[in-house]
Amino acid sequence: MPGKREYAVGRAYEFVLMKILRDRGFYVVRTPASGRGTSSQKLPDLTAIRRRDGGSEVLLIEVKHFSRPRDVYLEKERFKQLMEFAERLGARALLCVHFSPSTRIKCLDLKDYDWETPGYYVFDKRSFEERGVDAASL
Amino acid sequence: MPGKREYAVGRAYEFVLMKILRDRGFYVVRTPASGRGTSSQKLPDLTAIRRRDGGSEVLLIEVKHFSRPRDVYLEKERFKQLMEFAERLGARALLCVHFSPSTRIKCLDLKDYDWETPGYYVFDKRSFEERGVDAASL
Repeated sequence: MPGKREYAVGRAYEFVLMKILRDRGFYVVRTPASGRGTSSQKLPDLTAIRRRDGGSEVLLIEVKHFSRPRDVYLEKERFKQLMEFAERLGARALLCVHFSPSTRIKCLDLKDYDWETPGYYVFDKRSFEERGVDAASL
Repeated sequence: MPGKREYAVGRAYEFVLMKILRDRGFYVVRTPASGRGTSSQKLPDLTAIRRRDGGSEVLLIEVKHFSRPRDVYLEKERFKQLMEFAERLGARALLCVHFSPSTRIKCLDLKDYDWETPGYYVFDKRSFEERGVDAASL
């Protein structure tokens, strides 16, 4: 569980990412109850929609902030909920991460985790840099 | 302005339509502030999303209920907001109407109005029956 300050900064990065996505032409909704102790709920931190071809592109995004690069753990139950939701909507499920002191937010597809433990799917801290998409290029 | 009972029944039909759309595979969100005196806001009564081809299909829906068949007036300002929003999202903007005592909800594309007045686009009451799509076929 991150500390109070870490949580506040993490929330601030949700708004930073919203701004980036809006600049990319997305309409973005932040899930109101998003945040602490809500991992059991179904909706992602952010939902982003924009025009694409004859239809729409939908992104379901979990946002995480850490005060330094570290491996990122995503609960398997949360993963399952988001993947099922993405499947139903024809959406892409993403994990977008900010590691201080970087100024970038990097995103990986939820299904592109590196390894797993009994309760978590784990993303190697280097994967965001090496394979991640800059949020500003989404 | 419809009466109190008319309004309550109209709201009930938003939930009926949500159920129909969910049965059609859509994920549906009702705009919380939707209803009386909110025509100046941007969001539609309902937003529905489902998988389609390699992406998503998004519907933006205004729902109206009337105690008998009558021509339906949509404020031009509201029309403009919804059409711009639909354009941005790659969505289809619909007007779905229930006329008592029918059991059906019929929908027309917002742009398929029949005539206009200085302040409104008007949908002929017969158009819903003649050209409308049954909500259960969306």
